Amino acid sequence: MKLARCSYNQTDPFWAVVDPDRDEVHPIEGEFSSWAPAVAGGAGISALCLSDVTLALSKVRLLPPIAPVNRVVVAGANYAKHLAEDFGLSAPSQPVAFLKAYGALIGANDPIRYPPLTAELDHEVELVAVIGNSDVDLEDPLACVLGYTVGNDVSARDLQRSGPAGIGMDLFAAKSQDRTTGVGPWVVTKDEFPAGSPGLRLTLKVNGDIRQDGSTTEMTWDVGQLVSFVQQRSSFACGDILFTGSPAGVGMGTGLFLNPGDVVEATIEGIGTLRNVVSEKSSSQQGAKHDH
Amino acid sequence: MKLARCSYNQTDPFWAVVDPDRDEVHPIEGEFSSWAPAVAGGAGISALCLSDVTLALSKVRLLPPIAPVNRVVVAGANYAKHLAEDFGLSAPSQPVAFLKAYGALIGANDPIRYPPLTAELDHEVELVAVIGNSDVDLEDPLACVLGYTVGNDVSARDLQRSGPAGIGMDLFAAKSQDRTTGVGPWVVTKDEFPAGSPGLRLTLKVNGDIRQDGSTTEMTWDVGQLVSFVQQRSSFACGDILFTGSPAGVGMGTGLFLNPGDVVEATIEGIGTLRNVVSEKSSSQQGAKHDH
Repeated sequence: MKLARCSYNQTDPFWAVVDPDRDEVHPIEGEFSSWAPAVAGGAGISALCLSDVTLALSKVRLLPPIAPVNRVVVAGANYAKHLAEDFGLSAPSQPVAFLKAYGALIGANDPIRYPPLTAELDHEVELVAVIGNSDVDLEDPLACVLGYTVGNDVSARDLQRSGPAGIGMDLFAAKSQDRTTGVGPWVVTKDEFPAGSPGLRLTLKVNGDIRQDGSTTEMTWDVGQLVSFVQQRSSFACGDILFTGSPAGVGMGTGLFLNPGDVVEATIEGIGTLRNVVSEKSSSQQGAKHDH
Repeated sequence: MKLARCSYNQTDPFWAVVDPDRDEVHPIEGEFSSWAPAVAGGAGISALCLSDVTLALSKVRLLPPIAPVNRVVVAGANYAKHLAEDFGLSAPSQPVAFLKAYGALIGANDPIRYPPLTAELDHEVELVAVIGNSDVDLEDPLACVLGYTVGNDVSARDLQRSGPAGIGMDLFAAKSQDRTTGVGPWVVTKDEFPAGSPGLRLTLKVNGDIRQDGSTTEMTWDVGQLVSFVQQRSSFACGDILFTGSPAGVGMGTGLFLNPGDVVEATIEGIGTLRNVVSEKSSSQQGAKHDH
């Protein structure tokens, strides 16, 4: 089952079951937190109360699959080859987690803002887990996962390096820039994948050229281990999302950064493609004002 | 004018004008975002529509002065002596900003949770600016500030050091632990201080002994500079709060960490005192579930 958070003709955001093959969107009644735990628990579509209305998928706007009150957690340093080839770092003994600002998010078809403070805008395709239950069981961490979507953790590398010596990378400046991080197009519920942490090919293309091509089986820590790691440091709420790190091939290693007009397509097997175009370089610092 | 976010007999949180001398709380009608910009702009109490009800301050619960949808931004590395004496670091060329999880916050009289993963729980008294306008003018950054409150950016130092080599301090694990960071007791509007970034004495006592004793005039970057620094990396929304760094004297430098039962009093001249008691060490990872 594919679930998306959408708006239609400027309506307030709503969640819906989407059927891309039939170009259909079926809005779900009730708050996310009222039905997500049951779906995360395996109840499937029977847990949902669908509206009588059917909309055309091609007519709705796909929003980031997270409400503004929820958190965007990134658990990175999770692909050894990415760390070695792109950053010259050896594999760490544990992941690193941090928070991304909600205002950094864009939906599946929105433009990637090019912030004025950077000259090294980079891409990072990532598997993103959506948390569907605030009761996280450290013995069975995948039980709280509703499903998976695609993320592009766009990063300003020059800002990432600007952090003070002894403190470390400036991940806030690099990864919370307004309206840069694509996430979507929809959430595929975990019952569509074999049990356990999913093993899926993930690729990223820029103007049709493959830049990243990896598999989530290369993760140093699988999704369940990352959920447990984060939960012990700062508890999840129902509706939070978790980025799980990016494989090798980013501009930091190759020198091929993003440019205005670039078409960026992040794809994960069994989920879908997130397609965002890089805007002209913004002259204004006032880019946030998220409208979702 | 003193403003607080409170609840009374389990009501939904509301904002109010508080008068500690008369033990009075006057609830404000309307959303924070509907009146905060006018108060930040200098309109004073005339911008507020007060309820007919008056409550006793001693009967309300003082909550963190921020709604769950807003962000907690910390701009640290801002007191050179703290960096040198407590961390052995030289003064950086710019501050470091990061996000703290909302679930980390507690109100003015709530217990500080002692998380199970740490053995080095530490205190950090900080001036906290409350953003009252989403239009941040980089030429006049203090114009968006509603007022100031007191923060205690409680930090798990052993977790702070656990970040991967080459990436840096794990500020998420150290500073986003559930229900650890006190903030309050109320916001004092900026018209009660001289124009410009405030110069105020800030102290922190543990069981009556002074551990930190500094002045916000020691900041490397003043409040306006920090607001501009953050805004250029990730835009503020009305209602966000900004921690501005802590002076020297924390346990990281002295070896005197917090223990269960400790009474921690963080005080800033002209604002007030935040008094929180450290709980017994928690056996559960499930500490968040913020109730505010």
